[in-house]
Amino acid sequence: MVNHDTAAQLDAADPLAHFRDRFVGATSDLVYFDGNSLGRPVAAAAGRLTEFVEQEWGGRLIRGWDERWMDLPTTLGDDLGRVVLGAAPGQTAIGDSTTVWLYKLMRAAVDHALRTDPARTEIVIDTDNFPTDRYVAEGIAAERGLTLRWIEVDTSAGVTADQLREAVGEQTALVVLTHVAYRSAWLADGPELTRIAHEAGALVLWDLCHSAGSVEVDLDGWDADLAVGCSYKYLNGGPGSPAFGYVNARLQEELTQPIQGWMGHADPFLMGPGYTPARGIRRFISGTPPILGMVAMQTMLELVEEAGIGAIRAKSVALTSYAVEVADATLPEVTLASPRDPAQRGGHVTLHHDRMREVTARLWERDVIPDYRDPGGLRIGLSPLSTSFDEVERGMAAVAEALAHPVSGSGR
Amino acid sequence: MVNHDTAAQLDAADPLAHFRDRFVGATSDLVYFDGNSLGRPVAAAAGRLTEFVEQEWGGRLIRGWDERWMDLPTTLGDDLGRVVLGAAPGQTAIGDSTTVWLYKLMRAAVDHALRTDPARTEIVIDTDNFPTDRYVAEGIAAERGLTLRWIEVDTSAGVTADQLREAVGEQTALVVLTHVAYRSAWLADGPELTRIAHEAGALVLWDLCHSAGSVEVDLDGWDADLAVGCSYKYLNGGPGSPAFGYVNARLQEELTQPIQGWMGHADPFLMGPGYTPARGIRRFISGTPPILGMVAMQTMLELVEEAGIGAIRAKSVALTSYAVEVADATLPEVTLASPRDPAQRGGHVTLHHDRMREVTARLWERDVIPDYRDPGGLRIGLSPLSTSFDEVERGMAAVAEALAHPVSGSGR
Repeated sequence: MVNHDTAAQLDAADPLAHFRDRFVGATSDLVYFDGNSLGRPVAAAAGRLTEFVEQEWGGRLIRGWDERWMDLPTTLGDDLGRVVLGAAPGQTAIGDSTTVWLYKLMRAAVDHALRTDPARTEIVIDTDNFPTDRYVAEGIAAERGLTLRWIEVDTSAGVTADQLREAVGEQTALVVLTHVAYRSAWLADGPELTRIAHEAGALVLWDLCHSAGSVEVDLDGWDADLAVGCSYKYLNGGPGSPAFGYVNARLQEELTQPIQGWMGHADPFLMGPGYTPARGIRRFISGTPPILGMVAMQTMLELVEEAGIGAIRAKSVALTSYAVEVADATLPEVTLASPRDPAQRGGHVTLHHDRMREVTARLWERDVIPDYRDPGGLRIGLSPLSTSFDEVERGMAAVAEALAHPVSGSGR
Repeated sequence: MVNHDTAAQLDAADPLAHFRDRFVGATSDLVYFDGNSLGRPVAAAAGRLTEFVEQEWGGRLIRGWDERWMDLPTTLGDDLGRVVLGAAPGQTAIGDSTTVWLYKLMRAAVDHALRTDPARTEIVIDTDNFPTDRYVAEGIAAERGLTLRWIEVDTSAGVTADQLREAVGEQTALVVLTHVAYRSAWLADGPELTRIAHEAGALVLWDLCHSAGSVEVDLDGWDADLAVGCSYKYLNGGPGSPAFGYVNARLQEELTQPIQGWMGHADPFLMGPGYTPARGIRRFISGTPPILGMVAMQTMLELVEEAGIGAIRAKSVALTSYAVEVADATLPEVTLASPRDPAQRGGHVTLHHDRMREVTARLWERDVIPDYRDPGGLRIGLSPLSTSFDEVERGMAAVAEALAHPVSGSGR
């Protein structure tokens, strides 16, 4: 049975509880179980955007580029590296979409392999990696004459060390891994999988979309090669806010990327003939950086720094563990499609039942907003700074009620 | 001599004069000659962003994707097509940077040629096209084994019909042209150059960065194949706001682009194995669209529609003609590096003098903000809806004064 006191006690003891007031709508009655898909706005975001529009853009006009914006992709990238990614300065840049970053960095890696070690003709990727990662890899394999080697992964799990060890070898150019799996929340072993890929002589690209801002990441500590991630999930940058890319400093002068635009040029305002890539992380930037799109993300990054990623992860573990506990107690007909061990689980919990598509539709009608992912997965995303235990309890009670009352219609 | 009455009379007779009140800071003392590089914010933009953050993002949360945002890249694209581009619905999408669009659409065109007519091994482009266009073309030529054929263009002019006729032939896969040249403001002949390329069996890609929102464009009327452009110049979307791409409907099913992400998939939320491109313009979209980044642009598009692009172009011609007239009368030491005939000139005027770099630095110190472009070009961008004739007069007087008083120091 759900125990109301338990949620209330957990909230009372939560050292991060006061952060909920810093988000738009977080203390409303609506239950938001989808902060892992689109994070709530930080309350300061609207004011910061107004200030940006009226003072910085409207006041400084084109001078803003000289004064701050030209460097913002890398200064904000450095902030993200320090606060969230475990990346020293000079390795992270903001801009583009995750998909475009995936294309640029996968191409950088495989083109490097084709130049230096043409026997490396395979890209290793798992069958439950996020679709855009798989589609981009598929396209690049086709255009560069490479082969995809698929690691078969159950939709309720992720890639293990044994599986990766079996898949890599002298033929591997690149391994594409996701840190927290979008369906199952499987938390991959960053340092171990990176080590296994490196022992086979391959580069690794980590997709951090579902981890940045909710679990601890230590790219430099893992000795990761490449990483990408979005900023609209646990970094609350707003719908379609710019993504980030990371390239380890030791690789930056060896790699080039194919979308060679003016902002990746060694001297953008020389505007002369012939492309010469910039030194460092700037060569992985292509077009004019999306400055306005970075403003909201910056407000969240400040909150993450204030709370500390360690404390955020601790609350995330407590929230997902509580959801699992309530599911165990009140939803006997449901299967857990996420790891039970919190050390192997990211910031969301997926519950499986054949009727979850229609359950999701019913929940949405009642202002309980989870996400649905095939096959039969109700995905409960619990953004640590904006979600309370009480919210989890109310939402789980609604799930139980929706499951108990068969609905008609086709669902969403 | 400059005649104060003339500027005042021109402002008094300007049917679009009242639009200046609709922009942040447009009636201040600052002279802004760089709206062709970064347009001023529309006054409504800050409020619209606040509304978006608090109501739409904060209130609808993830539901916003189902309700409006999934289609926004193409519905806003259709609006842009109707109001600005002369493009029927279903051919324009918003997202990415201009550079990324250039990469995707150039690749779409040359990959198509390589599949269907491999003897077409050349990309034709001019030496004074914008750097990012040249750099992207250079990269694609190298990776696809193609050759660049350069049309030599003087920095004060642009590509003529005769020059293009000489450059194209059975070997041409793609012609990359700019509609308004970023340095000279040369206004290329859209329908004629398109026709010449088509007669040679080649596709044409138009760069509309310096034309969208200031000169009349008629992509469907020209029978253009592909086009790209940014939204932060005359479309006032803010620094780094998303760009647009146009693919003529007759080509959409024949072409594919290399950055095959989930948002270009026929069914993004199927999330299954294997990439199947969507039908229509959606297949040219890659990652999650930058929704927040589209909000400010939309406020400007409404003003453009209200004023009408014909009236905007008429005012643009009047503004640039007035600037040329004042330069002729007061700056005998300066050369006009833009077409004298307004029918051949876009929305800016470039004045040449060896000292223009230091003149620009001096003008910036005095809150007169033009741009400098090598070699020796003072670029005066006159955004039609936010610039008055009085502003032109005051700015030109400051140029005369800066030129008359030699300055020390190295300039910016």
